[in-house]
Amino acid sequence: MTDKNKVALTPPMGWNSWDCFGAGVNEEQLMANAEYMCDNLKEYGWEYVVCDIQWSEPTAHSCNYHNFAELYMDEYSRLIPAPERFPSSADGKGFSVIAEKIHAMGLKFGIHIMRGIPRQAVHRNTAIKCDGVTARDIAQQFSVCSWNTDMYGIKAGVKGAQEYYDSIFELYASWGVDFIKVDDICITEGHPNNLYSGKAEIEMIRKAMDKCGRDMVLSLSPGPAQIEHAHHLSVNANMWRLTGDFWDQREKVHEMFRKCEMWYKFTSEGCWPDCDMLPFGHLRVGDVREDSYTRFTKEDQYTVMNLWSIFRSPLIFGGHMPDNDEFTLSLLTNQDIIDINQHSSGNRPVVSEKDKAVWTCFDKDGNRVVAFFNLTDDDMTFTMPAEIAETENITLTNLWTKEKITASAEDFSLKLAANDSAIFRIEKI
Amino acid sequence: MTDKNKVALTPPMGWNSWDCFGAGVNEEQLMANAEYMCDNLKEYGWEYVVCDIQWSEPTAHSCNYHNFAELYMDEYSRLIPAPERFPSSADGKGFSVIAEKIHAMGLKFGIHIMRGIPRQAVHRNTAIKCDGVTARDIAQQFSVCSWNTDMYGIKAGVKGAQEYYDSIFELYASWGVDFIKVDDICITEGHPNNLYSGKAEIEMIRKAMDKCGRDMVLSLSPGPAQIEHAHHLSVNANMWRLTGDFWDQREKVHEMFRKCEMWYKFTSEGCWPDCDMLPFGHLRVGDVREDSYTRFTKEDQYTVMNLWSIFRSPLIFGGHMPDNDEFTLSLLTNQDIIDINQHSSGNRPVVSEKDKAVWTCFDKDGNRVVAFFNLTDDDMTFTMPAEIAETENITLTNLWTKEKITASAEDFSLKLAANDSAIFRIEKI
Amino acid sequence: MTDKNKVALTPPMGWNSWDCFGAGVNEEQLMANAEYMCDNLKEYGWEYVVCDIQWSEPTAHSCNYHNFAELYMDEYSRLIPAPERFPSSADGKGFSVIAEKIHAMGLKFGIHIMRGIPRQAVHRNTAIKCDGVTARDIAQQFSVCSWNTDMYGIKAGVKGAQEYYDSIFELYASWGVDFIKVDDICITEGHPNNLYSGKAEIEMIRKAMDKCGRDMVLSLSPGPAQIEHAHHLSVNANMWRLTGDFWDQREKVHEMFRKCEMWYKFTSEGCWPDCDMLPFGHLRVGDVREDSYTRFTKEDQYTVMNLWSIFRSPLIFGGHMPDNDEFTLSLLTNQDIIDINQHSSGNRPVVSEKDKAVWTCFDKDGNRVVAFFNLTDDDMTFTMPAEIAETENITLTNLWTKEKITASAEDFSLKLAANDSAIFRIEKI
Amino acid sequence: MTDKNKVALTPPMGWNSWDCFGAGVNEEQLMANAEYMCDNLKEYGWEYVVCDIQWSEPTAHSCNYHNFAELYMDEYSRLIPAPERFPSSADGKGFSVIAEKIHAMGLKFGIHIMRGIPRQAVHRNTAIKCDGVTARDIAQQFSVCSWNTDMYGIKAGVKGAQEYYDSIFELYASWGVDFIKVDDICITEGHPNNLYSGKAEIEMIRKAMDKCGRDMVLSLSPGPAQIEHAHHLSVNANMWRLTGDFWDQREKVHEMFRKCEMWYKFTSEGCWPDCDMLPFGHLRVGDVREDSYTRFTKEDQYTVMNLWSIFRSPLIFGGHMPDNDEFTLSLLTNQDIIDINQHSSGNRPVVSEKDKAVWTCFDKDGNRVVAFFNLTDDDMTFTMPAEIAETENITLTNLWTKEKITASAEDFSLKLAANDSAIFRIEKI
Repeated sequence: MTDKNKVALTPPMGWNSWDCFGAGVNEEQLMANAEYMCDNLKEYGWEYVVCDIQWSEPTAHSCNYHNFAELYMDEYSRLIPAPERFPSSADGKGFSVIAEKIHAMGLKFGIHIMRGIPRQAVHRNTAIKCDGVTARDIAQQFSVCSWNTDMYGIKAGVKGAQEYYDSIFELYASWGVDFIKVDDICITEGHPNNLYSGKAEIEMIRKAMDKCGRDMVLSLSPGPAQIEHAHHLSVNANMWRLTGDFWDQREKVHEMFRKCEMWYKFTSEGCWPDCDMLPFGHLRVGDVREDSYTRFTKEDQYTVMNLWSIFRSPLIFGGHMPDNDEFTLSLLTNQDIIDINQHSSGNRPVVSEKDKAVWTCFDKDGNRVVAFFNLTDDDMTFTMPAEIAETENITLTNLWTKEKITASAEDFSLKLAANDSAIFRIEKI
Repeated sequence: MTDKNKVALTPPMGWNSWDCFGAGVNEEQLMANAEYMCDNLKEYGWEYVVCDIQWSEPTAHSCNYHNFAELYMDEYSRLIPAPERFPSSADGKGFSVIAEKIHAMGLKFGIHIMRGIPRQAVHRNTAIKCDGVTARDIAQQFSVCSWNTDMYGIKAGVKGAQEYYDSIFELYASWGVDFIKVDDICITEGHPNNLYSGKAEIEMIRKAMDKCGRDMVLSLSPGPAQIEHAHHLSVNANMWRLTGDFWDQREKVHEMFRKCEMWYKFTSEGCWPDCDMLPFGHLRVGDVREDSYTRFTKEDQYTVMNLWSIFRSPLIFGGHMPDNDEFTLSLLTNQDIIDINQHSSGNRPVVSEKDKAVWTCFDKDGNRVVAFFNLTDDDMTFTMPAEIAETENITLTNLWTKEKITASAEDFSLKLAANDSAIFRIEKI
Repeated sequence: MTDKNKVALTPPMGWNSWDCFGAGVNEEQLMANAEYMCDNLKEYGWEYVVCDIQWSEPTAHSCNYHNFAELYMDEYSRLIPAPERFPSSADGKGFSVIAEKIHAMGLKFGIHIMRGIPRQAVHRNTAIKCDGVTARDIAQQFSVCSWNTDMYGIKAGVKGAQEYYDSIFELYASWGVDFIKVDDICITEGHPNNLYSGKAEIEMIRKAMDKCGRDMVLSLSPGPAQIEHAHHLSVNANMWRLTGDFWDQREKVHEMFRKCEMWYKFTSEGCWPDCDMLPFGHLRVGDVREDSYTRFTKEDQYTVMNLWSIFRSPLIFGGHMPDNDEFTLSLLTNQDIIDINQHSSGNRPVVSEKDKAVWTCFDKDGNRVVAFFNLTDDDMTFTMPAEIAETENITLTNLWTKEKITASAEDFSLKLAANDSAIFRIEKI
Repeated sequence: MTDKNKVALTPPMGWNSWDCFGAGVNEEQLMANAEYMCDNLKEYGWEYVVCDIQWSEPTAHSCNYHNFAELYMDEYSRLIPAPERFPSSADGKGFSVIAEKIHAMGLKFGIHIMRGIPRQAVHRNTAIKCDGVTARDIAQQFSVCSWNTDMYGIKAGVKGAQEYYDSIFELYASWGVDFIKVDDICITEGHPNNLYSGKAEIEMIRKAMDKCGRDMVLSLSPGPAQIEHAHHLSVNANMWRLTGDFWDQREKVHEMFRKCEMWYKFTSEGCWPDCDMLPFGHLRVGDVREDSYTRFTKEDQYTVMNLWSIFRSPLIFGGHMPDNDEFTLSLLTNQDIIDINQHSSGNRPVVSEKDKAVWTCFDKDGNRVVAFFNLTDDDMTFTMPAEIAETENITLTNLWTKEKITASAEDFSLKLAANDSAIFRIEKI
């Protein structure tokens, strides 16, 4: 059995289709993003190409779900890709052709699933891959997702329950899947239906994944995960969401600072509390009303990159990458920033207030790194917190501009514009 | 349009199949109870014969539901009786044959329904009686009952929603139904799914009933109804449950005193807060593990009859009546008690404590009535509360034993055994 | 023992000092309002002149409390008026001189108290009127009001607790007090400190009042009272508040419609759910920042008068009456409206929606009365609800303008401007 | 400014007077325990002698508080020891004589305080050490402890608030205090009064302590601390309680396993989540009803010692030490166990279930340590969890019995009796 922590020694980096295509991404769009990643980002460590929700639904075309829509399903009640949207999946090939192409590019392939078994399987009472058991026997009849009609939860402990999860991971392994985002499972507050199955379904999924014969990253959604369950999440998953969906709204950035302050102790090899996708570039593609480039300012985007990096969140880009402008691409190809995200240690907040934050860590060479965040709509001047001040003269290198400042820690002073941030590597002279 | 209050000028009296047959009552059992009522109880005012939950489910035979079982349904997604259990319903006759027979006995016929539309209709996307709309269009996709898998709630406001409710009440009217118990709709706390539809579905049902062309009593279940919604319930329904299911357990009797204290102001013509069925006689028929006569002592049963009467709850018997023993029958045929329930006024608690209660009202002739309840496991001696004491000499007639006591109010003293109660008519000498 | 319900056969009508003088009213201001009432309002039924909170605090002069201020107190730890503010109270006369003068005007006198015993008595451990017991012995040490520092709650059941309450009511009776508003006691949600003593302290106060030898109205504050406790309130008090403090803000009017819908069944002789003072005329006197005439429009004030009347709330005026303008006075001297408030029956909502309401009742002569309320910022046209429509031709008399309309109920149509209301007496022709 | 983390580089070890003497410990008892520690425990690392609550109250003699009792207080509203109980404190010497004696033994001295300012100071409006400000000005008038009447909370931000805290820490520093347990401050759920001041008072205390010129350990009580606030606690305190008071009840041990699973990531130099005192030996001294040696079995005591050690909780003994029997003393003088508590790393649960737990860490020499806990009332057999299994042959040394077992990890099997536990050091052969 593989150690699940070995599968994600550093925070996973990749792309996910939700922010740009909602439930409606198709093969062409998916491959276009894979190619972009291969050509532009692979060398910086980006590797996962993840197809988000409802790839079994032939008519999905936006972020609005069609209630009770028919889904493609095989003879064992397992959802399979809709060939209308993923032509290469025809004739029972599932996602194997896509996975193979992505692997050939030197990248990895991921999919999204909902916990549970399709409601349509339960109401038709179709077979599952377990003798003498049908879909109806394993469905948790009162456990329904509160925002999507596809599935019922699965009853832990009944015959066929673990076997059903085993059967779907066996299928995904046969396709060559490297990353699974399981949805409707991580949030552990507010949604009473999850009382029925949350933790138990996570454990069944962990077991099925361990048995499936292929290394896969396990990512749990949506948040907010509750920190009381941090140990359970750490033992079973590689990533878990800290909040509800993150979008290009500044107040959601501020909320993330609160969450990072709570969760920073729980990052370690194989365990990456997840700040969610980076909603940069071309989002909401084809949604007439809202089609738009990110609403974030450049300052906002630097703030997000700086926080996600110094907190060591997974980095999963959300925009349609072929439409990236130069600035957007520059955010993803700063090796210094990526190194902080992938290889730093001792990451923690030094100041964590409503209006400002200062985080610090050590980079892979042992240099101190410090990030300053102005969370207000006014200018703000920062000094070096006593706790991390070095007495000697130091050189501070701005990791975005590469500018160097020489100062003593006591004299250091930094003015940041409204909602701006900055991150520096500090070297003693 | 009929005034809904005119349909239940006094608290409804009848029989319901749940306590004895659970979800599995059949035509023979139903008619046996109707005949018993006709022969033994009709003259005292008992009139409704109510078939409880899941009469569309061919295999139901106890109080345990079969998850996702196939239900009989007509071409408009309306549930119809299972002919395996109700043979006279074959050939599209529904409950009309049974209703006709019961009407011929001089009685009335009632059925139970769940709010909503069958999940099976939604997943098959069958037609409803509204052009251009199918079951899928009107289902509230996240509103599921927390204890039964038959239905989805209905979305208020979408085309076809009111029409669906209209169509089922049209059908029930055509069968000759006089009483509808709607379930999964009254409880207004704790079950978040009801946030989606509770009040709105009650209003759709009220409208459909008003239009259906036949007088029907509307009874809402289960409780506890919240008293904040008392006005809404009063305007829309004839009966609504004050608690969860009432069974032959003494602590549930004590809970009912708390509820009656809260709700007594809301009894009026057409509005009868409902203490639930009388779990007396032969209950849980055929359930091997639990088949039993009521576990209530005689004292408990008198207490229940006295409270239900002086509070003016509906009186719906729950046991299999052909198996009634003499004592049980005697509980149902005390004209004095029934008159209190049907025709008293000014009903209210005078004492309402954890350990004891005293209630009073005026009977139809204007005589004061007083009931004393010892809610402890020890003897207790009662005097006449000053508030209702009469200065003159009085005669107290025990309404069960018919014994008369002559006393002045000041001298009156009553010793009641543990958990016993007594009810008296007071006349001035 | 007096029947507490006989003390307030109809909703109490009067004036209270809070809305105009906060905690700082003085003898001169109080008497000026008494004189105004005697001269202008007495003939319409207005009778109670009530001195609100902190009459023991010599330095109070606004609605802001001085934390831990010294209070005047007698040798039994009973608060007495501060002679700086109430000169006639000097030499141990308490409120007796004021009460006597007000009685001489044909009016009645009321005071405000906080539940409990002064914190200063407890910390000084002063005597109470009970041998062998001191203030410290009866204080509920963790029960403090959440907005005022004067008192600790009193521990029910310990020696001296009932005796302390008895001693203060004995004192108030000796002064000639006719009305007591007890504060920090009615609200039964949200304030966990009240868990310690709420219901028990109400019962001690009831007992003390019953024993004190003088009829007094018992008014409980602040709200919101919880309707689950309606029976307990009905048995013990004459008035209890339905909401937090009511002020001249339109959203508070709308909230009151929700509360009236919930509580209308609980009005009866001696039991008057209380919509709080009428914040009309000159409010916030002397508070520089906010000193102002009511912010309510005339329409708002009609709406308040119409709802308070047809719901039968107590009518307690809140402004400094000598500064009343003609319009304000006219609101208080409409005999028709006052008659509805004092002598109507069958009061209830016919329509009770977010945007509009229709209430009805019968006046003392048995004529139907109907009030229409437009709760929106747009015009609205009302017809006569079927439920109260009379088939014959009718005359509708507008109770404010005295205009008469002749119509059949079916043809009746009423257009009301934004936030306006109208109330009519209906007579068949 | 001292780094607060340097003051408690390892989990504090000591004795506290609460479990044996409640609020009533006196100088003689305190010194007897100090002498015992000096003679028997000092060499193992035990050093803090802590005087718990209400040392200002002259009449306290058990764990029951005297409500509103007079407390000794100096001219700046600072509580000082009651000379009736602490004779050496007379003449304004405070705890300095006791501290000096304890320091002379090579030990350290600690005291308990309640957050806030004495209620008696507020009601007398006495001076504080800040010009122009009195006790009344800084009291948070609605913030009272829910179980003790001594104090009001302090209003952050008003003049005099920080100054008052500064003044008390200045006093404690002058006495020579090394450890402060602040009570009524750590619990961050359920007690709404803490909404007023919790976090803000912690921050004022931190500042005052940093300024006072003497190193002191800061311990916060009572629990349960909420893990959402873990960062705030880590930044400000050295110890914080994970639960309510821990006593000699087995269910409280089981609860502690749940808490340790949640909190183990938050142990680090200067930050020691606190499992509370060790309720062993002679507890509840002089409380006639309950005077007793610990009710824990030997197995329970081993379980507590093993968990507290491998979790790295502070170790604060709760019994009256001169009455220790040999077994009790043996629990405190096992150098191997103490070394695990003081110097291990990588401490974490490997198995954390309702019925059993396995924890592991590395000792100061880098050897793996593993502890097995049977939390049931039946025998249980453990094997070595795969996650920590070593492939080579190993020697396991039982840290209590010093017995050695040689086995391969795969063959290792351990049978534990009901509620027993065992802890081993593992060395590769």
